[in-house]
Amino acid sequence: MYLTNEKVAVLGAAGAIGSNLVQTLLETRTTNRIVMYDPLAGPLEGAAEEIYHCAFPDAQVTSTLDEPEALRGATCVITAGGAPRKEGMTREDLRRGNCEIARDLGEKIKRYCPDCKFLIVIFNPADITGLTALVHSGLDPRRVTTLAALDSTRLQTRLAQHFDVPQDQVTGCATYGGHGEKMAVFKGDLRVAGTPLTDILAGAQVNGKGLTRVEWQEIQEHVRNGGARIIKLRGRSSFQSPSSQSVQMLRARITAGDYPWPCGAYYNEGEFRRIMMAAPVRFTPEGIVAGVPRGDEEDMAALRASYVHLCQLRDQTIADGLLPPIAEWGEVNPHL
Amino acid sequence: MYLTNEKVAVLGAAGAIGSNLVQTLLETRTTNRIVMYDPLAGPLEGAAEEIYHCAFPDAQVTSTLDEPEALRGATCVITAGGAPRKEGMTREDLRRGNCEIARDLGEKIKRYCPDCKFLIVIFNPADITGLTALVHSGLDPRRVTTLAALDSTRLQTRLAQHFDVPQDQVTGCATYGGHGEKMAVFKGDLRVAGTPLTDILAGAQVNGKGLTRVEWQEIQEHVRNGGARIIKLRGRSSFQSPSSQSVQMLRARITAGDYPWPCGAYYNEGEFRRIMMAAPVRFTPEGIVAGVPRGDEEDMAALRASYVHLCQLRDQTIADGLLPPIAEWGEVNPHL
Repeated sequence: MYLTNEKVAVLGAAGAIGSNLVQTLLETRTTNRIVMYDPLAGPLEGAAEEIYHCAFPDAQVTSTLDEPEALRGATCVITAGGAPRKEGMTREDLRRGNCEIARDLGEKIKRYCPDCKFLIVIFNPADITGLTALVHSGLDPRRVTTLAALDSTRLQTRLAQHFDVPQDQVTGCATYGGHGEKMAVFKGDLRVAGTPLTDILAGAQVNGKGLTRVEWQEIQEHVRNGGARIIKLRGRSSFQSPSSQSVQMLRARITAGDYPWPCGAYYNEGEFRRIMMAAPVRFTPEGIVAGVPRGDEEDMAALRASYVHLCQLRDQTIADGLLPPIAEWGEVNPHL
Repeated sequence: MYLTNEKVAVLGAAGAIGSNLVQTLLETRTTNRIVMYDPLAGPLEGAAEEIYHCAFPDAQVTSTLDEPEALRGATCVITAGGAPRKEGMTREDLRRGNCEIARDLGEKIKRYCPDCKFLIVIFNPADITGLTALVHSGLDPRRVTTLAALDSTRLQTRLAQHFDVPQDQVTGCATYGGHGEKMAVFKGDLRVAGTPLTDILAGAQVNGKGLTRVEWQEIQEHVRNGGARIIKLRGRSSFQSPSSQSVQMLRARITAGDYPWPCGAYYNEGEFRRIMMAAPVRFTPEGIVAGVPRGDEEDMAALRASYVHLCQLRDQTIADGLLPPIAEWGEVNPHL
């Protein structure tokens, strides 16, 4: 009845994303065995009670204030347990504090659930918190990812609105590299109702509408500010879409199935090595296999700029003492 | 891929319950065709954007600030569009304001979607807001219900915690009559791991634990305060369980299938006539068919007290001019 009965630990389970995650894991019959962890006792109890009052069949949901207890024996760990963004903040304002949390989490995973098959890091700036958790966890990088879909789904949404077509008629949306402000939008596979975006930018119309270069820049800008916009409109950072997409990623991991959006991936080698970034991936029985984004010169230039930025964030995090120097990563995590 | 492609209108869609409802309808593949209505433009846009960023396959989700537009052609209406409870309030403190909203909704349903097959009223006090909407809507009472499950699932939760057994080993939990403070807990079919509660109260043990009369009263008190407790723990009234249970009810309505919890039901005749209250129901192709609760003397006495209380709420609402006098209900709604 559920896709798996293996233990999934949800960290930050009292928060908006975490509590939605637990519900969504159960509503979609993904797993019936969940441990909810949060350091806040009252909200955690309240969130767990709400789940119990849903009365999901055969659910085995527990909650704990003890993170090691949550992690022990967990096959999958999904963490929304960082500080959220408030109005006026960039994701990177959160870096230092949330990388501390990510380092501690990595160390605890190494100690309490080294056989964990999948870690999804949701909290921002996810590229660098994900990398920090990966290095310290000792996990195979195919088993560690970050939520990286939302820039792409926001792009899809905005293009669908512009052309007034159903959302799933906008295909091949992908932003790679850093999340949000430094994302690189790839035009290559992007089609609106079957027409390549490159043709549209060259003058083709869809549904009676064209797209000028200026409008295309505006759309990208809109997507870049997509997260900040949710905060402005709702008074809180997005929580439903991060949760929903994370469950879709977990389902792809369990089934080695399709997941159509970019995921956070780590490269040991190649041009984009030693960082984590949004990348095209396949799910295999061993985990995520990342490909290298391919695009035109403009796309690749944006990706390279994004990579440089991610390297800077990484180096700041090394300077802060929250990541070891790159040369020592292999000692902390033999998979790197 | 979805259980139905018929239009479901979610009212109050920017709120905590409403936005969770939209997501849950899609996560559970219940319907792909949803109109989100809310009077608050910014939050509504933010909530709709979050749903778009989930990128549900084949979803046709729109949002509108125009309630008639939301209702037109809707096969099902789920409304969380009342004011929520704040800490220290009872559900009944909300009565007057929310019954105004319910009356307006009923009148709009009559005008814009008289063929609506199912109306679920979630906002409190749900028994009386549901009744108010029913009378004004002109709908067959088999097509109108209120969310009435949570007292029962809270009772199940609490008993499972007391006996330290999996939640679904506590069966036959049912509270009838008014929601919350005036609920009537029925012992008749209640079993813990197969042992009747009446036997347990007479001294039988389950999992090495008994239940004294005093403990049983405490558990009922705990359940009665279940909603207020969520507000205390989370800082907001419950929203995940109302949403999840409502989707389960809708699925039962669509499939004429099983739904194991009490639902709000209206009786034209019999001892509990002319109110709406939590009752045992069956889902048929025509809608909800309510049975009359059966219990021992104590249970029935509690139900009668609850009925008297609901009649008082109804009569106050008539005095407020938000419901017509009972003798005139048949003119407003020929099904009554």
